[in-house]
Amino acid sequence: MYTLFRYNWQVRDEWFQLCDTLPHEELMRPRTGGLGCILRTLFHIVDVEYSWILFLQGKPDFEETFEQHATLASVKRLSESFRPEVERFLQMWSNEMETRTLQITGRSGQLSTFTHGEILRHVIAHEIHHVGQLSVWARELNLTPPSANVIGRKLMEREQGLT
Amino acid sequence: MYTLFRYNWQVRDEWFQLCDTLPHEELMRPRTGGLGCILRTLFHIVDVEYSWILFLQGKPDFEETFEQHATLASVKRLSESFRPEVERFLQMWSNEMETRTLQITGRSGQLSTFTHGEILRHVIAHEIHHVGQLSVWARELNLTPPSANVIGRKLMEREQGLT
Repeated sequence: MYTLFRYNWQVRDEWFQLCDTLPHEELMRPRTGGLGCILRTLFHIVDVEYSWILFLQGKPDFEETFEQHATLASVKRLSESFRPEVERFLQMWSNEMETRTLQITGRSGQLSTFTHGEILRHVIAHEIHHVGQLSVWARELNLTPPSANVIGRKLMEREQGLT
Repeated sequence: MYTLFRYNWQVRDEWFQLCDTLPHEELMRPRTGGLGCILRTLFHIVDVEYSWILFLQGKPDFEETFEQHATLASVKRLSESFRPEVERFLQMWSNEMETRTLQITGRSGQLSTFTHGEILRHVIAHEIHHVGQLSVWARELNLTPPSANVIGRKLMEREQGLT
């Protein structure tokens, strides 16, 4: 699981690099799908990952809004500032946590029970899904999106045991 | 990892259901990004997952082309016919296989070494990424794409131990 987080971070950083070549107006231009524009989708990716990791730790949510971080530099800063805490959390991950449950109250008040393992996979898939959306928008701009390949990134060499 | 395969299959089947409501011309209409149209992207998802699983088992590749399966019914049939073998392979998965290596000769003749674990994660991320692309195309058609959520699908209840 840690490997797929590292994959997401590597791909995310490549998207930041690509977006660095685009004017701010292009990052904010309304588009179909995702969160409606490139920058808001990047903010959402960063926000959702961190919010779930806070939630799994029983900490208060990150409540700042996109409007407070509507520049690429600010979204990159958030991403960089959140990562060490997410990394620490993943390094403490154990098999026992996979099945640990937690309850969430939905918008209409209904209670749902999820396992920590389920939530971690949700966070992983969430980012990959949104990056797929970004890739369509990049092609519309005649840009080559960063590779979505997991292989060839040497992701599993660094930390044996934390897969 | 098995959970994320089950996630992909559930989401894939929901996409098949959604596509069942669309005329064939819409599934074939040229679009920006992905594999260039909805049906070819669905075929690619099915083809790539199975081809990697065959490869990991040392079996010959699936070599049929999209042109041989360019209807939704045919792509669905392929998906259904491949699944039992993919499931059997995942059910035999063990931690020892994570780090088992395998060499691949690239298009330009260079040799790359990957672990089985890395390839399995690649297969998972590959489908989620392409489904993200499909979701943009669905929104362009004013359709609501199937949910990309992992949580709420009861994916981890069925098979404890095979996470």
